[in-house]
Amino acid sequence: MILVNGEATEVLTATDRGIAYGDGVFRTVAVRAGRVCAWRWQFAKLAADARRLGIACPSQATLHEEVRRSAAGEGDCAVKIIVTRGSGPRGYAPPPQARPRRVVLSSGMPPEWARHGENGVTVRVCALRLSWQPALAGIKHLNRLENVLARAEWDDPTIAEGLLQDGAGNVIGGTMSNLFLVEGDDLVTPDLSRCGVEGVTRERIMAGADRRGRSCRVAALSLERVLAAREVMLVNSLIGVWQVRHLNGRGWDAGETVPSVRQWLDENDD
Amino acid sequence: MILVNGEATEVLTATDRGIAYGDGVFRTVAVRAGRVCAWRWQFAKLAADARRLGIACPSQATLHEEVRRSAAGEGDCAVKIIVTRGSGPRGYAPPPQARPRRVVLSSGMPPEWARHGENGVTVRVCALRLSWQPALAGIKHLNRLENVLARAEWDDPTIAEGLLQDGAGNVIGGTMSNLFLVEGDDLVTPDLSRCGVEGVTRERIMAGADRRGRSCRVAALSLERVLAAREVMLVNSLIGVWQVRHLNGRGWDAGETVPSVRQWLDENDD
Repeated sequence: MILVNGEATEVLTATDRGIAYGDGVFRTVAVRAGRVCAWRWQFAKLAADARRLGIACPSQATLHEEVRRSAAGEGDCAVKIIVTRGSGPRGYAPPPQARPRRVVLSSGMPPEWARHGENGVTVRVCALRLSWQPALAGIKHLNRLENVLARAEWDDPTIAEGLLQDGAGNVIGGTMSNLFLVEGDDLVTPDLSRCGVEGVTRERIMAGADRRGRSCRVAALSLERVLAAREVMLVNSLIGVWQVRHLNGRGWDAGETVPSVRQWLDENDD
Repeated sequence: MILVNGEATEVLTATDRGIAYGDGVFRTVAVRAGRVCAWRWQFAKLAADARRLGIACPSQATLHEEVRRSAAGEGDCAVKIIVTRGSGPRGYAPPPQARPRRVVLSSGMPPEWARHGENGVTVRVCALRLSWQPALAGIKHLNRLENVLARAEWDDPTIAEGLLQDGAGNVIGGTMSNLFLVEGDDLVTPDLSRCGVEGVTRERIMAGADRRGRSCRVAALSLERVLAAREVMLVNSLIGVWQVRHLNGRGWDAGETVPSVRQWLDENDD
């Protein structure tokens, strides 16, 4: 079901700045057994992202209710929340009187994801290199052509995700996921200060590691370093944790870290 | 008037990938006395941009007719053409069966633009730095948050435009315009191979200079070089040519090049 500003509809005002300029932010949240997973984290991130673009974020209660309504009767599903700056006249200048618009839409989870969670995944390296834009780095905004072009590079269904590097060769994450390496007993995740999306699941894993006193660092990660890692994981709010089992001719056996990380996520699901 | 796929409406399907990802391209064309200015150039650029994103461009005849219909009864106006990849399920992968969607909307020209054309303009330098993304450079795509953030830096109505630099300090253009310098008798315009939009008016001016045997080069331009230029011009399809008269404490008298360049544009208006 699609809700636009709380009303069930299939359509959106054509003058919305979301379509004109990608002028907005979004979240994709999992709803399981009617419960909006990690909602506190999700809303906090949405509000922070909106703030960085100078968009007034709708209230937590309004969005929570709309996510639940959109998911009602759908079973376990993904709900996407888009908050745009709203409508405006032609021109880049954000209209001071713009009223943010909420679009909340539910969709099913791809059936192969459960298998990927269980068996791990085969991953490729994308040719597209992410650009550095500190003003937008970390934000889950609506300017996602880099992700679209990267994801368009392959259509082999046995490849579950593609890794993205920046222009300097640092691995930043997957097209739709954040990355963690296991090096010795430590977790390492890429520095996202110049590009990439700071996902909520990444944040929850970092908090979980912190609580356990397990080292989790942010670092610049070369592809060589990824290939040399003891374990490699891709994470997001819908897929949870996928272990990378095949990448560039390198294979990994099933590792021990994924179950631990899943437990941390279960504990940080509020 | 707004036309979506040729139908007069105010709304758009909420599952359009234009809103989800900025997955599309656009043009802004001037319609004067019922005539779509520089239409051949505009369509060629739209089709080239769509091709770079792997979007099938609607036909020239269809779009031309819709631009005229959207502008009918509006007097001289701006018509924006958006072509998105169309609707699709959640996920970055472009659906192979996606049917591109056309949004054509008209709006009036800001009344101050005529004065800016006559008297020249005061311009500022934006703090935001454009990122380098060769895969998207030159394309007028719907991922325009950089322009939005840059344009949000000022609301002083006496400042008509802001100059954008890349991370290395190269001046790339205005938030909504391309840049030309006059150096001696030569024209120079920024290299747009890593960022910026290759506007149709820029292309028409380069063709006009070429026809006259006047030197017009593409180069990396520092802000110092802009400030040292004999004349500085900002151009786009709606504003035509504005001479920069004030920038960073430097002033310029009315120059001789603007009338010539306007004549070249009149000759390249097919």
